Amino acid sequence: MEMIQPDGFAPSCPIPASSYAHVVLAHGGGGRLMHQLIEKIFLAALGGPDPGNRHDGAVLAPPSGRLAFTTDSYVVRPLFFPGGDIGSLAVHGSVNDLAMCGARPLWLSAGFILEEGLAMETLWKVALSMGRAAGAAGVRVVTGDTKVVEHGKGDGIFINTAGIGVVEHDLAISPAAVREGDAVILSGDVGRHGIAVLASREGLGFESEIESDSAPVAAPVLDLIRAGATIHCLRDLTRGGLATSLVEIAEASRVHVRIDESAVPVREDVQGACELLGFDPLYVANEGRFVCFLPAAQAGKALEILRSHPVSAGACEVGRVLEGGDPGRVTLTSRIGATRVIEMLSGEQLPRIC
Amino acid sequence: MEMIQPDGFAPSCPIPASSYAHVVLAHGGGGRLMHQLIEKIFLAALGGPDPGNRHDGAVLAPPSGRLAFTTDSYVVRPLFFPGGDIGSLAVHGSVNDLAMCGARPLWLSAGFILEEGLAMETLWKVALSMGRAAGAAGVRVVTGDTKVVEHGKGDGIFINTAGIGVVEHDLAISPAAVREGDAVILSGDVGRHGIAVLASREGLGFESEIESDSAPVAAPVLDLIRAGATIHCLRDLTRGGLATSLVEIAEASRVHVRIDESAVPVREDVQGACELLGFDPLYVANEGRFVCFLPAAQAGKALEILRSHPVSAGACEVGRVLEGGDPGRVTLTSRIGATRVIEMLSGEQLPRIC
Repeated sequence: MEMIQPDGFAPSCPIPASSYAHVVLAHGGGGRLMHQLIEKIFLAALGGPDPGNRHDGAVLAPPSGRLAFTTDSYVVRPLFFPGGDIGSLAVHGSVNDLAMCGARPLWLSAGFILEEGLAMETLWKVALSMGRAAGAAGVRVVTGDTKVVEHGKGDGIFINTAGIGVVEHDLAISPAAVREGDAVILSGDVGRHGIAVLASREGLGFESEIESDSAPVAAPVLDLIRAGATIHCLRDLTRGGLATSLVEIAEASRVHVRIDESAVPVREDVQGACELLGFDPLYVANEGRFVCFLPAAQAGKALEILRSHPVSAGACEVGRVLEGGDPGRVTLTSRIGATRVIEMLSGEQLPRIC
Repeated sequence: MEMIQPDGFAPSCPIPASSYAHVVLAHGGGGRLMHQLIEKIFLAALGGPDPGNRHDGAVLAPPSGRLAFTTDSYVVRPLFFPGGDIGSLAVHGSVNDLAMCGARPLWLSAGFILEEGLAMETLWKVALSMGRAAGAAGVRVVTGDTKVVEHGKGDGIFINTAGIGVVEHDLAISPAAVREGDAVILSGDVGRHGIAVLASREGLGFESEIESDSAPVAAPVLDLIRAGATIHCLRDLTRGGLATSLVEIAEASRVHVRIDESAVPVREDVQGACELLGFDPLYVANEGRFVCFLPAAQAGKALEILRSHPVSAGACEVGRVLEGGDPGRVTLTSRIGATRVIEMLSGEQLPRIC
């Protein structure tokens, strides 16, 4: 990966426009062109083994601990948005899913579904961004696949990443472990990713450009675990946002979660955009935010650790699991002291946000 | 998985047409509808943990051996074809990639990209088929993801599976291990998958219906390893077929492979279809066939083991790695004794075959 410069300088696309300016169906056909695409674009951007050791899969040394395994497909539109692109998102999303299992992310797979006619330059930029994001998150892309579909049967680039991580502790992190009295810690302000993508898609010009919060969050989570925090549950706040994640956890763990609206950080520009667009920031997707349930007595120490990492510098306690509450329920105490029930949306606010 | 009957009886779609006959964007939105889709379709067909243990990923006991990790996306058109469908294919493909690493397949992830408007019944049939194929291949689908894209931005169903397997031996199976004098074993007749899909896509009626060879091949491979075969290299013969796989291996291992055309089994109906359509069966995709390179002295025993499994009952020796040949070259001795060089195709014969 020496060819990728850390200062943002992008080397030019290794398949020159004079040979292939666009992806053609044959780039997915298994022949010489597909091999060229893999070699010049994907292996150049993402790294890989020498030819003698290339396989249908990667063979990896066994990690010493339980495994975490996750997958996500990425269909975000547009491909590039303030604060990220589909390549960095595809790394952050799966790295964060592993972190939410309390795992240290190790390896990613990358499956590309390309639409015929995609600009080769675009693919190169996305692959480069993916390689950089993987490097920054400390994971390696170790295996991959490419398919090409006819023009009009896809939408530029879809990416699937699956991730393997190692669980190096004995905590059983899951909704089933949530207990009455637990503190609910939020890792930072909410709503930025969804608004950034929407504004970019619709060409909305807000006064300040809102950047996605897309980022890897494994480092602060692993720090919490190393410090001995008895984490009960973790959840990243992607599709459906904070509200949906809390309802999922409350329903699965049969507890009552109460959160305090005034404690949930929402940037002023995000709040303003949400008001203009008719969205509730609690339901807007994030890609670098999570909630952590743990015993209230550990909340102070946990906040201190989280705030020492830039990605979770804005961490705060936003609520509690009530003693003897209404199982499966999430309630919110508003700024004026009123209480309302938080429901899971039936559908969605924003399609193709990730 | 009790609801799935082994006799081919398919239970009716758990989301009735009266509520949702088709997939809508909100089925991918992270809200109540997405949860219903996951619960009623995917978990019903594929199995899964109870709600209190549902996560962004699966946490799995560490296997005792090196790990194999692979991924493939499936965009086959049409979704259903003689001998299989996109669901069974998505299981067989990744199981076979793990087998080609010499690994015992353990776990799969499943990522679905659905097109708005897809018939719910179709999705259910595919998920059921996937569950059955996983059961038959001895793997578990342990984690998944669903995205929905607008009508016209996808093509019904795309599936990505990633697979994890365990390598329970010390062989280093890769092109780098291929040696001069090695026998080249082919596991059965070639060309059926590609022709079955093409005939079904184009509505071609051949005299006999040609069925795909799509099937899991891990069992015979693991039997070979258990019997002590010193396998040097394995490769499944998917996109690009036998010819492309041999060129890949010859180039990567810098050896000269010679195969004997008359030794390569091609069914008469497949040969006839290929002649009609202008295809060379050596380049047509298979989904249940592989080549195995191993010392020639072990070929007899290896064939005996492979032929004891229905999926590789037609195994035969098709060629050798020449001593002192032309590195990186594959040559074929034709039925009339002529020799020609086998090249990798530049593009492809058949788009969207898997």
